Amino acid sequence: MKNFTHYNPTRIEFGKGKERNIGQYISEYGVERVLIVYGSERIKKSGLFDTVTKSLADNKISFEALGGVQSNPVLSKVYEGVALAKSTGAEAVLAVGGGSVLDSSKAIAAGAVYEGDVWDFFTYKAVPSKALRIFDIMTLAATGSEMNNFAVVTKEETKEKFSLAGPATYPTVSVINPELQATVTNEYLAYSAADIFAHSLDMYLSVTYLPEYIAGYVENILKTVIRTTEILLTDANNYEARAEFAWTATQALNFTTFCGVENNRYDTHFLEHTLSAEYNIAHGAGLSILMPAWMKWQKNNQPERFVQFAKNMFNVDGADAGIEALKQWYRKIGAPVTLKEGNIPEEDIPMLVEKLSAVVKMWGSEALYSKEMIRIVLENSK
Amino acid sequence: MKNFTHYNPTRIEFGKGKERNIGQYISEYGVERVLIVYGSERIKKSGLFDTVTKSLADNKISFEALGGVQSNPVLSKVYEGVALAKSTGAEAVLAVGGGSVLDSSKAIAAGAVYEGDVWDFFTYKAVPSKALRIFDIMTLAATGSEMNNFAVVTKEETKEKFSLAGPATYPTVSVINPELQATVTNEYLAYSAADIFAHSLDMYLSVTYLPEYIAGYVENILKTVIRTTEILLTDANNYEARAEFAWTATQALNFTTFCGVENNRYDTHFLEHTLSAEYNIAHGAGLSILMPAWMKWQKNNQPERFVQFAKNMFNVDGADAGIEALKQWYRKIGAPVTLKEGNIPEEDIPMLVEKLSAVVKMWGSEALYSKEMIRIVLENSK
Repeated sequence: MKNFTHYNPTRIEFGKGKERNIGQYISEYGVERVLIVYGSERIKKSGLFDTVTKSLADNKISFEALGGVQSNPVLSKVYEGVALAKSTGAEAVLAVGGGSVLDSSKAIAAGAVYEGDVWDFFTYKAVPSKALRIFDIMTLAATGSEMNNFAVVTKEETKEKFSLAGPATYPTVSVINPELQATVTNEYLAYSAADIFAHSLDMYLSVTYLPEYIAGYVENILKTVIRTTEILLTDANNYEARAEFAWTATQALNFTTFCGVENNRYDTHFLEHTLSAEYNIAHGAGLSILMPAWMKWQKNNQPERFVQFAKNMFNVDGADAGIEALKQWYRKIGAPVTLKEGNIPEEDIPMLVEKLSAVVKMWGSEALYSKEMIRIVLENSK
Repeated sequence: MKNFTHYNPTRIEFGKGKERNIGQYISEYGVERVLIVYGSERIKKSGLFDTVTKSLADNKISFEALGGVQSNPVLSKVYEGVALAKSTGAEAVLAVGGGSVLDSSKAIAAGAVYEGDVWDFFTYKAVPSKALRIFDIMTLAATGSEMNNFAVVTKEETKEKFSLAGPATYPTVSVINPELQATVTNEYLAYSAADIFAHSLDMYLSVTYLPEYIAGYVENILKTVIRTTEILLTDANNYEARAEFAWTATQALNFTTFCGVENNRYDTHFLEHTLSAEYNIAHGAGLSILMPAWMKWQKNNQPERFVQFAKNMFNVDGADAGIEALKQWYRKIGAPVTLKEGNIPEEDIPMLVEKLSAVVKMWGSEALYSKEMIRIVLENSK
């Protein structure tokens, strides 16, 4: 194993009814005033919003609320939240929703204690070393944001979809009640599965050293995702499958899978952010399109790893058979595997190559992402 | 999955040379004075002690040192440490050694900020909710103590071997450099493997609900232990095997394997503590003796689980074949599997039944451990 640091201080409260204790969890940290951040008004119809505010009231915690966070969350909403957190003296941000709501909340929490422009954190001009405490109740499993310090936000004018990460942006307490995640559509379940796959495979298939223990660990996550996704597509209320799906989503991006690996590239995530910023498609859909395409490019860099993947995950022989098996599985669960299936015009490829190359240049990552590599991956996704 | 809370704030610094940064890690938390706790004087001959104190000096951290902690660490040494920490104004305890040194250090850290008798934490008269910060450099992998809040200590007069656990007894930073663990004897390597197995199997084979994801997670740990132990027995300097062995030891008892399970009993650990307190044998040796014996008793309570274990771990059919396969593996690596092999007189069984029953009574655990159950397990270990 290569040298590593592992640290993850987030406390997870997992299971049925845990959201009813949110006020208690928050009050344990001495917080008396929060900003609730959420997406659509559905959480008011479902009763979740009332459950949360009742628990806050029971624990003498006052709140303001900011709704309207969309998928592929935008910077303008973060600015709104930062202003509201500052003006109301919020001591913590409570995200109630999916990854987009939590990511916005992390940015708001960091921005609320920062004098400059919160976008500085996304362009690495500043590091979020301080933030309001972050709490969350997750209504969608996929991003793993509930147990890491990442937040991805899009700046609308420039369609830049960038991420922040710092020591202060780990949630203090994350509530994961799988029952709250049972209303997700099959379409989004498939996108979630593709997101978890990408969190795992971007690493597994790219690193120049993968300890056998970590390989087995990741394969166990992915096998669980395959098994539980297939159950949930026909039995949305299967609690056990829902719970294992949710927990593997958390495990796939809480840094345990990165322990001891070497040269983690995270390619499809890097490439996908520009896709979903440009077309406002679901992040998971962008990933299921790009993953097989990227794999076709990547297989020659890690030939043995691809054979291992094919054998251990799908019990087929050879890199190509493994890629095809994954593609077929994505099709089976209803995730798009071509640009066309994602309603992205193939004739946009040259424009996308230019856009992506500009992002690569901005980050100084030309050594990792040549224009040729980007073009090949996009062509592979036709 | 059953409802659970997961929280583990320990920061791990893993890899070659990390011990040279210990002063920097400690100073990041504002600590200026530590009590170093260690076992034998070997760490002075090996140069590790000098490396540590140089790093402390480089970071302007002063220290006192307390050596002489033994395996199956004793309360009198903890008292000595508590007094020294108090009298020298230590702000943190730095354990340099194996599980016994770290466990003693945890107790010292909690005792140093407690007015009463530190043994109160072990008899559950008080909870260690405050403690000095705990840091460690691990020279032996097995106990997992570097990433949990447990500490096991023996009170010499009564031969009571009990444990404490509280919110304040997680290490702040644990340094795991597998190279420092390469001098362990093959004998102790086998005991360590048996300890990791017991941390896993006490749970895996007893819980009344085991999520399939967790089963796969644990099986991956155990397969890694089997693979790396066999390598290390003939190639002690194989760094990759040593590193994976060390990391699985940590993972096996950092609470991730307990997420979502139901009714975790932890039987062989409970029973073994009396054995090693009575005979001062290695904890891992006591566990390799008791595990197959306990399994023979337990198999009827979880018949399907035992079949799963046999199939997934050793690719054999049926509970008995699985138990036998594990027993043979223990023999192969040199861990004792009978009382006789552990130099424990079989004629002591009636005495041990009485001793264990007294401990059971003290903890009010008669419903879990009948005198008959204890007798059967001990008889099975003949």
